[in-house]
Amino acid sequence: MFSEKVINNLKNASWIRAMFEEGERLAKIYGRENVYDFSLGNPFSEPPEEVIESLKNYVTGNYKGIHKYMNNAGYPEVREKIAQSLQSDSQIGLTQDNITMTVGAAGGLNVVLKALLNPGEEVIIFAPYFVEYIFYTDNHGGKPVIVPPDPRTLEPDLDALEKAISPKTKAIVINTPNNPTGIVYSKEKLEQIKGILQKKENEYGTIIYIISDQPYDQIVYDGMKIPNILSIFENSMIVNSFSKSLGLAGERIGYIAASSRIKDADVLNNALSFCNRTLGFVNAPGLFQKVIGDSLDVKTDTADYQKKRDYLYEHLTALGFECVKPQGAFYLFPKALIEDDVEFVKRAVKYNLLLVPGSGFGCPGHIRISYCVSMDTIVNSIPAFEKLVQEFRS
Amino acid sequence: MFSEKVINNLKNASWIRAMFEEGERLAKIYGRENVYDFSLGNPFSEPPEEVIESLKNYVTGNYKGIHKYMNNAGYPEVREKIAQSLQSDSQIGLTQDNITMTVGAAGGLNVVLKALLNPGEEVIIFAPYFVEYIFYTDNHGGKPVIVPPDPRTLEPDLDALEKAISPKTKAIVINTPNNPTGIVYSKEKLEQIKGILQKKENEYGTIIYIISDQPYDQIVYDGMKIPNILSIFENSMIVNSFSKSLGLAGERIGYIAASSRIKDADVLNNALSFCNRTLGFVNAPGLFQKVIGDSLDVKTDTADYQKKRDYLYEHLTALGFECVKPQGAFYLFPKALIEDDVEFVKRAVKYNLLLVPGSGFGCPGHIRISYCVSMDTIVNSIPAFEKLVQEFRS
Repeated sequence: MFSEKVINNLKNASWIRAMFEEGERLAKIYGRENVYDFSLGNPFSEPPEEVIESLKNYVTGNYKGIHKYMNNAGYPEVREKIAQSLQSDSQIGLTQDNITMTVGAAGGLNVVLKALLNPGEEVIIFAPYFVEYIFYTDNHGGKPVIVPPDPRTLEPDLDALEKAISPKTKAIVINTPNNPTGIVYSKEKLEQIKGILQKKENEYGTIIYIISDQPYDQIVYDGMKIPNILSIFENSMIVNSFSKSLGLAGERIGYIAASSRIKDADVLNNALSFCNRTLGFVNAPGLFQKVIGDSLDVKTDTADYQKKRDYLYEHLTALGFECVKPQGAFYLFPKALIEDDVEFVKRAVKYNLLLVPGSGFGCPGHIRISYCVSMDTIVNSIPAFEKLVQEFRS
Repeated sequence: MFSEKVINNLKNASWIRAMFEEGERLAKIYGRENVYDFSLGNPFSEPPEEVIESLKNYVTGNYKGIHKYMNNAGYPEVREKIAQSLQSDSQIGLTQDNITMTVGAAGGLNVVLKALLNPGEEVIIFAPYFVEYIFYTDNHGGKPVIVPPDPRTLEPDLDALEKAISPKTKAIVINTPNNPTGIVYSKEKLEQIKGILQKKENEYGTIIYIISDQPYDQIVYDGMKIPNILSIFENSMIVNSFSKSLGLAGERIGYIAASSRIKDADVLNNALSFCNRTLGFVNAPGLFQKVIGDSLDVKTDTADYQKKRDYLYEHLTALGFECVKPQGAFYLFPKALIEDDVEFVKRAVKYNLLLVPGSGFGCPGHIRISYCVSMDTIVNSIPAFEKLVQEFRS
């Protein structure tokens, strides 16, 4: 009756919904402060003061026509500011023509995939992955091809990447800092990926596009800076959002920056604008485009996240969890204490600990812990983690 | 290299872009006030004062967490208000569960079609139609089936509708008040459509869903009220937006109301929420959801539009244009003075008149005139229309 594929996906995704509903149920019984909900990536803090001030300015000031349609690609002056901001780092000659404002990064990824894919073309996705990449690829007739990680480092297995590339490979999705691991790919790693790509492109006579989904690029620790994708890869696009960096997740504002070095970049930019319109986004929300234009230099406060990462990482590893230390984002991705991560997550619920199984990210045997929660929740959760560990030791 | 289908569509759509660029070019030469741009449906007026006040309240008040993610279907309290507002009119037992907040009506239509369609299923679209319906249907693997109008009234040809329904017909898109004609379907006409549907559903053992796209439902004239789709059709969904009624086109805020009388309505509502997420909308913009929740009773000022309709309709028919008198929306859709509407539109440019050919709406031989422009533009354009008419009379 309805779309069979969608109904099937709903069934498969129902354990995520179950976890969410479990949290609501537990909160009612024990009080929300006694439930340690590490399941969601919903930024904890309010937007920075500068963002709120800019918003107030547009809403209370005497601006006419700011709630109307504009170009499908967005306000030219906002796109120009983003281009200049990216240009100073990448030096590849970006202008407003290379920028498309989008309904968050999720909207941007759908627009990019729609603009790129012909039926049956393949999109390479590195596990562990943000599960939505699978749906986004499938939405536009593409075929997701999963490349497993090096199980020790959880970084992409490059031999596996080389084997996965076929004449039908149209794009590779890169997500750094990574959800769910918090890993930041090094410049060296990215150059290695580039080498493999070039070899395969020459072999097959194809172009393989890099789609860099980087909503966490402002949330990095220990003074780290993520390598510039547009400088490294000729045929690359950055898809970004201000959901995490400026705490605007619900407002759906982001952009696509398509490299000026892509062959027929003008055709691509027109296609992106067309897909933005016809997929039903029409344009990114206008008021928040304006606000973002004012807020590109606002620094994300990462000290608070870093403190939480350190506290949780130290306590969990002390309890015996094996975990790659994250360099960015706000997730830990330790190994579960048994092979069956779904079972492990179920048993954690007994201690009011809400975790997400790694299977949902294409990486069974792990669990994702989202630490964009209050410090109180983190500190109070440690005894619960202790009890959970004891259950598996006894 | 990029999506071949998208690139082809870009080529076909290029005359719309050409018209837009023509307007920009003419404005630079003659001044914007001397160009009569009737091409775009961009609401002319500012949002009502109540909407601006609500926006100010949320932005300057001490509300925490209002920019974060919420449920993919939207804020429960806003959905409940919309349900109650629609319930009072339709009396079919609507609750918040039947409402999904969307990124405008365009986003809502994509979500509905994604949730409904299996590959190759058919969507019936009445000509003249909003051209985007074709793209939206194709986005989700559906096949658009066009039903021509009665050429005299421009209303759907019901015999043609009956012939067009097949065992693969999944949905019919209704758009009332209609873009581009401004026609409002009568209750009688809708009951006739229902009769045909029921007959065909019985014959084929299928369910055919009514998707009612009604962003203009607050813009009706002469005291008219549009018939309630949810009351008439059991398997129906209203897709709506506040772009036109509240002048918020650029902010992308709308909703889907799915009838509680649909079989397995709960499954459908979950599917709509899932598609809202995975198509990349994630959720409707949060701040404007809140604003809309406060603004459901705000009346759209239609007196200004009605004055413009009357002035333009009277002057154009006096000049000899044949035109169905619109009862809603802000478009006139007269016959062109020659058969070739594209040629006619090109020749109008000579007099700085920017029109849109009816071919773009699946109805050649007509032109669309969007009168959501200033009264000055309308009054000053009449001599230009006179010259245009003279050219074709001489």
